Amino acid sequence: MAAKAQTYKGMKDYLPREMRLRQYIVRTLTEVAERYGFEPMQTPLVEYEATLAGKLGDDEKLIYRLQYGDDRLALRYDQTVSLARVVGQYPNEITFPFRRYAYGPSYRGERQQRGRFREFFQFDLDIVGVDSRVADAEVVAVISESLARLGFTGFRTLLNHREVLSALARVSGVAPEQAGQVYRAIDKFDKVGVEGVRAELVTSGLGDDAITAILEFIVLEGTPETVLATMREALQRDEQGLKAVEDLGTVVRLLGALGVSPTAFAVAPRLARGLSYYTGIVFEAVIEQPPIGSLLGGGRYDKLIGAFAGRDVPTVGTAFGIERLQIVMTELGLAPQESSTPHVFVTVFAAEQMAESLRLARDLRAAGIPTVSALQADKLGKQLKEADAKGVRYALVLGPDELARGEVVVKDLKSGEQQSVPRAAVVEAVR
Amino acid sequence: MAAKAQTYKGMKDYLPREMRLRQYIVRTLTEVAERYGFEPMQTPLVEYEATLAGKLGDDEKLIYRLQYGDDRLALRYDQTVSLARVVGQYPNEITFPFRRYAYGPSYRGERQQRGRFREFFQFDLDIVGVDSRVADAEVVAVISESLARLGFTGFRTLLNHREVLSALARVSGVAPEQAGQVYRAIDKFDKVGVEGVRAELVTSGLGDDAITAILEFIVLEGTPETVLATMREALQRDEQGLKAVEDLGTVVRLLGALGVSPTAFAVAPRLARGLSYYTGIVFEAVIEQPPIGSLLGGGRYDKLIGAFAGRDVPTVGTAFGIERLQIVMTELGLAPQESSTPHVFVTVFAAEQMAESLRLARDLRAAGIPTVSALQADKLGKQLKEADAKGVRYALVLGPDELARGEVVVKDLKSGEQQSVPRAAVVEAVR
Repeated sequence: MAAKAQTYKGMKDYLPREMRLRQYIVRTLTEVAERYGFEPMQTPLVEYEATLAGKLGDDEKLIYRLQYGDDRLALRYDQTVSLARVVGQYPNEITFPFRRYAYGPSYRGERQQRGRFREFFQFDLDIVGVDSRVADAEVVAVISESLARLGFTGFRTLLNHREVLSALARVSGVAPEQAGQVYRAIDKFDKVGVEGVRAELVTSGLGDDAITAILEFIVLEGTPETVLATMREALQRDEQGLKAVEDLGTVVRLLGALGVSPTAFAVAPRLARGLSYYTGIVFEAVIEQPPIGSLLGGGRYDKLIGAFAGRDVPTVGTAFGIERLQIVMTELGLAPQESSTPHVFVTVFAAEQMAESLRLARDLRAAGIPTVSALQADKLGKQLKEADAKGVRYALVLGPDELARGEVVVKDLKSGEQQSVPRAAVVEAVR
Repeated sequence: MAAKAQTYKGMKDYLPREMRLRQYIVRTLTEVAERYGFEPMQTPLVEYEATLAGKLGDDEKLIYRLQYGDDRLALRYDQTVSLARVVGQYPNEITFPFRRYAYGPSYRGERQQRGRFREFFQFDLDIVGVDSRVADAEVVAVISESLARLGFTGFRTLLNHREVLSALARVSGVAPEQAGQVYRAIDKFDKVGVEGVRAELVTSGLGDDAITAILEFIVLEGTPETVLATMREALQRDEQGLKAVEDLGTVVRLLGALGVSPTAFAVAPRLARGLSYYTGIVFEAVIEQPPIGSLLGGGRYDKLIGAFAGRDVPTVGTAFGIERLQIVMTELGLAPQESSTPHVFVTVFAAEQMAESLRLARDLRAAGIPTVSALQADKLGKQLKEADAKGVRYALVLGPDELARGEVVVKDLKSGEQQSVPRAAVVEAVR
């Protein structure tokens, strides 16, 4: 009896057409990362449950747990905790600064909704072990170059600093225990707008002056220089805040040296990124069309990666969500021509010509041309239909007449045209 | 308090040096598969437990099971059951013949031993939906070309046919219910030799004549033509056996047309490959040095892939085990020069020269040269040490004197030589 064929809910199969786009995305991200000297790393998808425990707060309920014999295990929730484990586990093999990239799936028991999957793939990159503005700028430069190479045009990377928002709370007279509410309210800016944030802050019990100061600050826009100058003025009484503004200024300057176009980034005081574990710069790449907002984000988080090493290990990083890129690129028509689809289909006229057809296919492959051959001498019409279904450009026919003349019929399946070509000229004809 | 950093037993972390070899292997296999028109596919690592149930016999106890809410789930045990599910699930999206490749991990609760991992990665390729000798030959050709491209020289692909061994049992007078014991005995040939197989067959209670006939058959060696001729003679009373020998002959002939060298394969009557689910040709690529025997194997299995479609779906396929290839290639010194290690390290003389250094790094990257830059103005000796540790070839120094002269010092970390080069000539100097 046939079992029911179904994919586990919230997870997805990728058939060839979608897979080709995903491969293109991962290949492009890998190339850019390698260009900047990031090195590949990979960890198992299964971790001891104890490795994840206590690191995810409320999200612990989303962990997929499993038990095998006496082993209490979990599927990884992200690649960051595993990076922290590796940094603690191989102190003699990893030298700082450690630029690493990692591509793979993670697992969360998310409620089902569009664009949210229980198995999702990320391309992470982090610079581990150095508290440096160059590192901060480099990660932003990699994001910028990656998105450009993928074909995105109208994107910008927004920059802010965790300590800028802390200082804002302080100079606005917000009590330390209320600061978290302020960050959460600011984090909703893109969804609820300035009046929405105001309402949140009122509900939090903040005074009018504090609310006014915060709202004036987070709506700041303009060139990086203008925004930084206004920030500096607003935070002038707060030493840590001024230091953070200075750091942001350094990053902005270094981005220029790294070749990031001035139109591709902006300082955005409203950027909060659920500040829970960030400790320094935060950033987020956004596009306006389609109106999905954030493409990806990241920042500096100096406390988390040392969790297993037993000391702070300063780190800055980001993670590209492959599903999101795939969805947005498809909507924007940025998916490349499927260059790796087979290019040529070699038909088989009759069983007696099979070996000749295979030899022709072999010659085309040896010349680097992706080539499919028919597997049996079906009617020619059926073979051409198969070639068409695979999206192949050229079909080749070698009947007994062609063989006798030392020729091959080259049929262009796009234009419908066909011509006889000497056997020795076929490779050139289909290139 | 720091949690203990440990990898789940039986699974492995891959740091950059090992990862580069693994990437090279997967990239090479992908290129060859694409060249033959195989298409990429990917399925989730998590399946409903019911999808795997009843397909693995005794091995069911090796399945990693998990439960999330009411969902009874399992980590996939291989990629074959998922392929069968996909074939059953998307009848309108998949057209036969379907050549698909898939790369990813699977999970088995194996007892720990060298070279056996509980998370292991396979590169599968299968031709689904056609019972064709061309398909059989094509999979063998892909194996042969892949191993050659990876740098293997002394390998051979052994070929046999499931029905040849069935016929051997029949013509030797083995009762049908004993045939399984005969296959299992033959399967041990490479480990226990001809006398070991004889002992097994004696224990099974086979008569002397049957044992002699079987042993004479399985030690056959020689050119494919000789072996096939002897097979034909031995099985002449068995129609199915003769058909199988003819099929083997066809595959041998087609391998020639596909360009597989006659020294790269052999017909091997002793090849059994735990015949449980194979229905036609079986094959196994072996090397003599290091003496590890089989690199990978595969064959035709016409019953399994239709498990969800509710009918037979003829399929031939193979799976490259990435860990095995990685281990053997390392032992044989086949790992390629690490061409993707960063090539250039740009030092930073002092904070004032940081932007100049980053601009230089940017220019190198724009020219396609993988380049790391220092993240801070440490002592030059420390920076050079970092460059050396990363395996970088050239370190570049831009001090105030060089900047004033419009030059850059290019230091070859391999030879120790260094020279001053005009800024505009740096890209050429390190290429």
